Amino acid sequence: MAKQHLEPTDPLAQPVTGEALAGHLRCQATEFLRALRRHRETGTGGSAPARARPGAGDGGTPESAGAARALRRSARRISGSLHTYRPLLDTDWSEGMRPELAWLSGTLALEHAFAARLERLLAALHRLSGSAALPAQPSGTPGGAPPVPERGNLTVGAAKAGALLDRQLTLARTRAHSTALQALGSSRFHAVADKVAVLASEVPLVPGAAGTDLRPLAVAAQERLADAVVALPLVTAGSPYNAEALVHGLSPDLSPHPQDGPWHQVRLLLRLHRYAREVLYGQNAPVDVRLLTAGQALNRHRDAAEAAAAAAQAARTPRIAPATAYALGVLHADQRHEVEAARFAFQQSWQKQTVAAP
Amino acid sequence: MAKQHLEPTDPLAQPVTGEALAGHLRCQATEFLRALRRHRETGTGGSAPARARPGAGDGGTPESAGAARALRRSARRISGSLHTYRPLLDTDWSEGMRPELAWLSGTLALEHAFAARLERLLAALHRLSGSAALPAQPSGTPGGAPPVPERGNLTVGAAKAGALLDRQLTLARTRAHSTALQALGSSRFHAVADKVAVLASEVPLVPGAAGTDLRPLAVAAQERLADAVVALPLVTAGSPYNAEALVHGLSPDLSPHPQDGPWHQVRLLLRLHRYAREVLYGQNAPVDVRLLTAGQALNRHRDAAEAAAAAAQAARTPRIAPATAYALGVLHADQRHEVEAARFAFQQSWQKQTVAAP
Repeated sequence: MAKQHLEPTDPLAQPVTGEALAGHLRCQATEFLRALRRHRETGTGGSAPARARPGAGDGGTPESAGAARALRRSARRISGSLHTYRPLLDTDWSEGMRPELAWLSGTLALEHAFAARLERLLAALHRLSGSAALPAQPSGTPGGAPPVPERGNLTVGAAKAGALLDRQLTLARTRAHSTALQALGSSRFHAVADKVAVLASEVPLVPGAAGTDLRPLAVAAQERLADAVVALPLVTAGSPYNAEALVHGLSPDLSPHPQDGPWHQVRLLLRLHRYAREVLYGQNAPVDVRLLTAGQALNRHRDAAEAAAAAAQAARTPRIAPATAYALGVLHADQRHEVEAARFAFQQSWQKQTVAAP
Repeated sequence: MAKQHLEPTDPLAQPVTGEALAGHLRCQATEFLRALRRHRETGTGGSAPARARPGAGDGGTPESAGAARALRRSARRISGSLHTYRPLLDTDWSEGMRPELAWLSGTLALEHAFAARLERLLAALHRLSGSAALPAQPSGTPGGAPPVPERGNLTVGAAKAGALLDRQLTLARTRAHSTALQALGSSRFHAVADKVAVLASEVPLVPGAAGTDLRPLAVAAQERLADAVVALPLVTAGSPYNAEALVHGLSPDLSPHPQDGPWHQVRLLLRLHRYAREVLYGQNAPVDVRLLTAGQALNRHRDAAEAAAAAAQAARTPRIAPATAYALGVLHADQRHEVEAARFAFQQSWQKQTVAAP
C-alpha cells in the first residue's frame, strides 16, 4: 500500500538488497574522510571566527566551512542509514556508532546555526525598520508629558537590539567554534574517524543481510513520517493567519514552545525518509521537489523558532533600555509569525503531495 | 455596465427618483431625533464612565450607549446621502450641514473607540500570555549572569503592559466622554439638531430633483469604491503571510502607517456605497452578505491598526520597565499581523464578490 507512494513510475519494482546499503555506507564514509582531509588542509587554526563576517558560517574560511558542512552531511547520512536499516547491521557496532555521529554533527552544526540565526535576526530588524541603513535619527521633539512621542526612539531601539543580539550570538558562535575545534582534536573524534575509516572498506552487515530486501524498512521509515504528519494540526496550519504560533508569546515558560516539538520531529523524520530513499535509489535518486519544498518549510520553521527564542532571551538581559526591549518584542513576534508562515507553507506543499499521489 | 453589479436580480430596473431620497432623509432625521430624545432620557448626567466596565461603550448606561450609537448611525447616513446625492440638494444647505454632522459623529464615536481599543488590546495580551488569569508569578531564579532567564518576567511584563494601557486608554476615554457631553450641550450641537428637526419634515431638494433618477449617482458612488479597490495591493494582500503590514514596524515615523491609508479610504467608500444602496432600496434593502463581510474586514483592519499604534505609543511612556516595553512590542506586532490578516480577509471576500458577479 505504501510502496506506491515512493514514486509514481516506480523504479523500485525489483528488490533492493543489503548490498546497496553496504555500497551507500562505503560511499558516505569515503565522503566523510574526504571532507575531513579538506577540513584539515583548509585548517581553521584555532582562531576565533572573524566577527565582521557573521554569515560566513563555520570557521575562518569559506573552504573550511564547506568542508565542515560536507562532514556533517555524510555523518547525518551514515547515522540515518544506521537507524532506518538497523536490522541489517551489527547491533553492537551500530549502537556504538550512532550517538557518536550525532554528537559530532551536533557539535559541528552549532557554530553555523548561531551565525545563521544572527543573520536572520539582523535582516528582520532591517526589514522591520523599513530602511536598510538604520540611521541614528536625533530626537526631534524636546520632550514633554507622557505619552509624548519621541521621534527616532524606536529606530535607536532597533539599532540597540541589533547590537545586543550581535554581541550575544557572536559570543555564542565563538564558543561553538572553540568547542568544535576541541571536538575535532579530541580522542573521541579520532575514535569516530577510525570507525568511519573502517566503514569505508568494510560494512558490518549481519549474516544474510546482503540478500535481504531493503524496501520494507524504507517503507517503515516513510510510514513513521506519515504518522507524525497526520498528528500535526494541519487544518489549523492551513488556515492563514490562525495566530497559533504566537499563543504563549508572552507566557512565563522559557523552554522551547511545546507546540513546536511535533514539527521539529516531522523535520527529522522527513530527513530520515529522504536518506532512506537515497539508499534505495543509489546515485540515481530522482529529486522529489515536493519533499524538498516540505523540508525547506520545516527548516524555516526551526530557524524562525530558534531566532524568536533568541530575541526573547536577549530581552531578559538585565539593564537594557525599554526601547531595546520593545524592538526585541516586535522581533520575537515577527519570528513567531514566520513560524506560523512556515507551517502554512508545509501544509500547502504536503497537501499537493497527497493530492498528486493517486 | 456598473448597474448590473448592484444586484443579480435587479429590482432597480425602474428609475428611483429624488422623492425616495427625500423620504430617506426624512426617515433618518426622525431616527436622529428619536435617538437624541432617548439619549437625553437615559441621560449620562455628567459622570465619568465607570472604570470597571471598559467594554460598555459610551456613557454610563447601556441605554445611553445605544442611543449614542443610534445618533451616530443616522448622522452618518444623512451625511452620506448629502455626499452621494449632492446635485439633487440645495448646495448651501448641504455644504453647511455635512461638516457639522461629521463633527458630531466623530465626537460621539471617540469614547466608544477608546473603550473598544482597550478591550481588544487586553484580550490580545491574555491570548499572548496563554492564560486567562495572568498570575503574578514570583521570580523563580534568584538571578545571575546574563542572559539568565527570569521565570515569570514576561508575564509580569504582560500584566504591567495591560495596566499601562488601561491607565492611558481609560484616561483618553474619560476625556472623550467629557468632550461628548460638552458637545451635546453646546450651541453648535443645538444648531445641528434644529437643522435635522427641519429636515424631518422638509427636505431642501433643488427644483426638478423630485423627478430625477438617483441611480446614476449611486452607480458613481459604486464606481468610486471600485476604483479605490483596484488601487489596493490586492495581489500582495491575497498571498498569506506576506509580512507587509509589519514593514516599518520599528520605523521612527510616528504617524499612522502610510500603507494603511488606502484601506481606510476604501472602508469609507464602501460605507458610502452601502448607504447609497439603502436610499435606492428604501426599507426593502436586501442584505448583501459579501458587502457586509468586506466591511467587517475593513473595520477589523482599522481597529487593529489603531490598537497597534496605541501599543507603540504606550511603549514611548518614559521610565517603563524593559519587560513592559517587550510585551508592548509583541503586542504591537501582533496587532499589525491582525492588520495583515484583515487585508487578506478583505481580499478573499472581494475576490468572491468579483467571481460571483457575472
